[in-house]
Amino acid sequence: MSTDRLRVAVVGAGYWGPNLVRNFAASDDWDLVAVCDLDLERARRVTQQLPGIRIESSLDVLLADDDVDAVAIATPARTHHGIALAALRAGKHVLVEKPLADTSERGREMVAVAQENGLVLMCDHTYCYTPAVSKIRELVADGALGEILFIDSVRINLGLIQPDVDVLWDLAPHDLSVFDFVLPGGLQPLGVSAQGADPLGAGKSCVGYLSLPLVGGALAHVHVNWMSPTKIRQMVIGGTERTLVWDDLNLVQRVSVFDRGVDLIDRPESGAERTARTIAYRVGDTWSPALDEKEALRSMVEEFAASIHGGRQPRTDGTAGLRILDVLEAAGRSLRQAGELQPLAASGWRHPAVAVAG
Amino acid sequence: MSTDRLRVAVVGAGYWGPNLVRNFAASDDWDLVAVCDLDLERARRVTQQLPGIRIESSLDVLLADDDVDAVAIATPARTHHGIALAALRAGKHVLVEKPLADTSERGREMVAVAQENGLVLMCDHTYCYTPAVSKIRELVADGALGEILFIDSVRINLGLIQPDVDVLWDLAPHDLSVFDFVLPGGLQPLGVSAQGADPLGAGKSCVGYLSLPLVGGALAHVHVNWMSPTKIRQMVIGGTERTLVWDDLNLVQRVSVFDRGVDLIDRPESGAERTARTIAYRVGDTWSPALDEKEALRSMVEEFAASIHGGRQPRTDGTAGLRILDVLEAAGRSLRQAGELQPLAASGWRHPAVAVAG
Amino acid sequence: MSTDRLRVAVVGAGYWGPNLVRNFAASDDWDLVAVCDLDLERARRVTQQLPGIRIESSLDVLLADDDVDAVAIATPARTHHGIALAALRAGKHVLVEKPLADTSERGREMVAVAQENGLVLMCDHTYCYTPAVSKIRELVADGALGEILFIDSVRINLGLIQPDVDVLWDLAPHDLSVFDFVLPGGLQPLGVSAQGADPLGAGKSCVGYLSLPLVGGALAHVHVNWMSPTKIRQMVIGGTERTLVWDDLNLVQRVSVFDRGVDLIDRPESGAERTARTIAYRVGDTWSPALDEKEALRSMVEEFAASIHGGRQPRTDGTAGLRILDVLEAAGRSLRQAGELQPLAASGWRHPAVAVAG
Amino acid sequence: MSTDRLRVAVVGAGYWGPNLVRNFAASDDWDLVAVCDLDLERARRVTQQLPGIRIESSLDVLLADDDVDAVAIATPARTHHGIALAALRAGKHVLVEKPLADTSERGREMVAVAQENGLVLMCDHTYCYTPAVSKIRELVADGALGEILFIDSVRINLGLIQPDVDVLWDLAPHDLSVFDFVLPGGLQPLGVSAQGADPLGAGKSCVGYLSLPLVGGALAHVHVNWMSPTKIRQMVIGGTERTLVWDDLNLVQRVSVFDRGVDLIDRPESGAERTARTIAYRVGDTWSPALDEKEALRSMVEEFAASIHGGRQPRTDGTAGLRILDVLEAAGRSLRQAGELQPLAASGWRHPAVAVAG
Repeated sequence: MSTDRLRVAVVGAGYWGPNLVRNFAASDDWDLVAVCDLDLERARRVTQQLPGIRIESSLDVLLADDDVDAVAIATPARTHHGIALAALRAGKHVLVEKPLADTSERGREMVAVAQENGLVLMCDHTYCYTPAVSKIRELVADGALGEILFIDSVRINLGLIQPDVDVLWDLAPHDLSVFDFVLPGGLQPLGVSAQGADPLGAGKSCVGYLSLPLVGGALAHVHVNWMSPTKIRQMVIGGTERTLVWDDLNLVQRVSVFDRGVDLIDRPESGAERTARTIAYRVGDTWSPALDEKEALRSMVEEFAASIHGGRQPRTDGTAGLRILDVLEAAGRSLRQAGELQPLAASGWRHPAVAVAG
Repeated sequence: MSTDRLRVAVVGAGYWGPNLVRNFAASDDWDLVAVCDLDLERARRVTQQLPGIRIESSLDVLLADDDVDAVAIATPARTHHGIALAALRAGKHVLVEKPLADTSERGREMVAVAQENGLVLMCDHTYCYTPAVSKIRELVADGALGEILFIDSVRINLGLIQPDVDVLWDLAPHDLSVFDFVLPGGLQPLGVSAQGADPLGAGKSCVGYLSLPLVGGALAHVHVNWMSPTKIRQMVIGGTERTLVWDDLNLVQRVSVFDRGVDLIDRPESGAERTARTIAYRVGDTWSPALDEKEALRSMVEEFAASIHGGRQPRTDGTAGLRILDVLEAAGRSLRQAGELQPLAASGWRHPAVAVAG
Repeated sequence: MSTDRLRVAVVGAGYWGPNLVRNFAASDDWDLVAVCDLDLERARRVTQQLPGIRIESSLDVLLADDDVDAVAIATPARTHHGIALAALRAGKHVLVEKPLADTSERGREMVAVAQENGLVLMCDHTYCYTPAVSKIRELVADGALGEILFIDSVRINLGLIQPDVDVLWDLAPHDLSVFDFVLPGGLQPLGVSAQGADPLGAGKSCVGYLSLPLVGGALAHVHVNWMSPTKIRQMVIGGTERTLVWDDLNLVQRVSVFDRGVDLIDRPESGAERTARTIAYRVGDTWSPALDEKEALRSMVEEFAASIHGGRQPRTDGTAGLRILDVLEAAGRSLRQAGELQPLAASGWRHPAVAVAG
Repeated sequence: MSTDRLRVAVVGAGYWGPNLVRNFAASDDWDLVAVCDLDLERARRVTQQLPGIRIESSLDVLLADDDVDAVAIATPARTHHGIALAALRAGKHVLVEKPLADTSERGREMVAVAQENGLVLMCDHTYCYTPAVSKIRELVADGALGEILFIDSVRINLGLIQPDVDVLWDLAPHDLSVFDFVLPGGLQPLGVSAQGADPLGAGKSCVGYLSLPLVGGALAHVHVNWMSPTKIRQMVIGGTERTLVWDDLNLVQRVSVFDRGVDLIDRPESGAERTARTIAYRVGDTWSPALDEKEALRSMVEEFAASIHGGRQPRTDGTAGLRILDVLEAAGRSLRQAGELQPLAASGWRHPAVAVAG
């Protein structure tokens, strides 16, 4: 293991690539050595203020370079599999934009190849690296909320109708990756039921809902919508001890913790365990933690470096991406079957630590 | 038809009865003549400031009285059927609290008996008589929103867990009755898919979701929750022309109309009609109509009187109550079948005008 | 001292009287024995649901009654002095609506006569008995805010233009009485500067501002306005340790405490004490205390009884009312002199405990 | 008059200079030819991504250059006068940051010299070029608000305590320049009364209030505060017809127009004109106009170019800056005299159109 600066190349200079370029270039952990895009002009534009970065249109040439330790992939989802496999087989660590791949089968192969080669495969689930979500994960892990009872996420506003994917594939990965990140043990749904509608005739769902019964009786739910002029980005996580509200558009109070909620009063004298429980309400203080100002992508590239140096899985590893893909695919099946619940393995497996050639 | 004051008796002096008593007593359209409750003391309490109101513990005695034109029923749901049928058969017009009955079969009989006897059967869907919902109905009817694309309602906060019904039966009638009231042609779902969870072991769903695909491709959705310390009562109605947001907890701007949204641009040169549509976004002004201050129940008792005098169905008649029951029953079936879509007739039939012995 | 129920009569059955009637009638500390109003019909209306309450049009007759321990005065301000003096001289404890009197001279006489007779004279500064203000007083007293730096209150909305008083006399007593209640040592301004305007030609100020430099260098400020369609009722209290915001229209988070603010860093090496201070900013959590649901007037009538039983001054005694009157009179002088600062004694004296014939 | 691109040099590469550099560089109206700063390294940094911009440390050399049409000054306020006079005497048009100068006397000389030389002297009152303020000016000018009754501006949050100026000189120019921009005829106060406090011992006011009685009986008021952890940037403009609220932190509804307010009902039968007016309240719709997304500084540099090409005064000319200086100086006098109203000329003169050598 070494703490030297790692050398990274960004593949894809389109919508998200420039953000990666900017953050790798600004990081103390990384040397950004190359940007690769079939459109050389586009690659040139994103690096014009960064002297010394190589421009490359050939992935093969790039991967043949021993000077590259890692590759960050910001290309369309259908190309993730091919590029990632090539990179992993060339011995490069890989960061890949969400979704991990366009099918879970391909995603699974990517995870397997990374494991075989002892390399890090990380998903850029950006929201997980925001100060708000980091704090939420910490609070849930510390038991501040108690047992989780429900988790409800709304992400709606006027959005571009994507040419290739529906609103569930476009927006729900954000919510699902946060669920996966903050729930103890990750997102382990017993199944998924999906509803969607295409009232505009766009050829795909423009509003969608996901219901995910969880192990232990809790219910997770997602509402995504491209057609709402009111912007809402709000997640409520209800627990037996406290309830948390993350309102991402409330700049002055993004995360609120309500010491209020439902108490279970066990009555030992009663026979049956379930019916013996009496429910009481509690009113208490509200508390809003101060949050760091750190940019999410900066934390994300740090975690990518730290996982390579540490020879460990990153916090949003390939299997996290796989859990999201499994849900999205099952949601697609459910949509086609009028919302029927599609069972999921709920294995919730996490990658064992690997020895990484750091 | 007469415009004389009508004479009404309120049956049930429990939770909701006092509100009816107060509003009938204050109305120029009505003479409140009696309050009937098995618990005479309770009946006495709600009338102690109203001299001259008869107290009655026997329904039979009450209904035998020729001085009573109409009966308002505010008793538990399972008793609605029996009391309403007795009243209708005694020639009284009937107002009944939501839900209309505890089963759709019984509700259907109530509607039939009212029709046979040429009497008004009205549901007290209180929200429909608020100034906000009246304005929304008017705007939708005037085409201000264009074609409806989606309608999403959230009604969550810490609520008492009811002994006999789940959260869907307790809260969703509010949302569904508003859907039914504002949608042109009423609520005509093709089916309903329901999800619920009981993470506390309360023996019934404490959080629930309903998805209702509508004729024409729109999707209606309801989220009700007894376990949230954050109170949200918000409905978004998206249309092709404008989108409306009703935030019932925003006292200064309850209804907002966004002249913003999605435009369909038909391209005539293209072959297939559907794929020829291009979607564009539009940003415009927001407008918030001034609302009357009138109490909903006051408007409701006026409508009850007006429908009797006019020999017409009230705006929230028995069939409206029936449409809600049909959805709730189908939701129960869906819950028991893991969210499977339960088809509904989508008949959306409305009662023909009846000749009422006003 | 006795803890028996005390007997009270309410004088004045107009705008505020019914609220007092309702709360005295519901209190376990009080027997409401009479309501006195020159307009007997009005007195009858407010007691019609309260059997056994005497109706009286003559103050003299009322005061001659040995069955009355205390009198609550809810008549126009200009009559407070006469009624209160008569009551005090008849040996009755007195509660009086805000403002204490129409001039500070008269108020001072009321305080003196109460003291001479060993009787309680209390001001109904209602806001001081709200759960929010009680909590604020407690937090300030506990040092949670540190030294007070500034206190700013805004109370604006469309309001009825009063026939006899300007907006400062109408609304500012609310803000000033809260200042007096929560500031340690009470409201002790060094002076007051007032600005007002009458752009409508109403014959009196319809918008007004008060600036009150306080002992110790802090500044208090009030903005009252009858002409604003936006309703704002917000007070910010800045301290060296924390800052508190009371937003009375925010039903879900009325009081917020920001653990954020300005730190004074004393540099001992420096010569002059003042210039040695360096200022730093701090960002911390926000906290919103749960508040009781108790009605303010209920707490107020309890305090009136407790002060009589305890032979002590109530929390909002006559001298508190006097401090408000002193500010309002000085504000009037300032208004007539183009905002010139009018010095105030800043004596901030509080009444010594009296022996009350409880 | 020519519509050729104008050549501009930015003087001062500190806090605000880079914003001017960026906007001049991006403008179609301008060629940014040089950046001048005594600290050449700082000048280099702001231009490193802009090839071909000259770096200059000598103002004399810069001004001797015939290739420069205009100079934008973003240096400390005390240097504005010297730099601007030198530039104007060298025949350059001048844009200067707020405040225009550090004394009104110096500002007046700058205005005079610009006029003598037929050159544009413009103040960068940035807020006036925001889409919100542009819309407000338009609404006021169109009479949408009727006669102005009051205008109240609050601008508070945790702010850096400035080394050289108090909170009034630091923040109030924003509010005053907007008043000047939106009020018909500009800001014409009859006088100013100022209150301030320095409870931290910072050596200058950290909280301040300005009251400005206006011609016609309206009252303008400003509250600025460096010590508040709650950020408020809100302006309310009350008129006889409508009232407008500009809440700069409300991203979804920045400007709201309330068709609600106070009606003056003249009663002709009455004798005295003033007392004959009866006041009535009106409740109507609220309306929130859609606003452009255009950056304020981009509009500002366009106006600078347009005023030069058009041989006319810019919308925020030197005399506008002078009106702000007059208020700030009078406020300083008022502060030193315990808030005494300092009369102002209220001349409200605006610069006559000049023939500019465009």
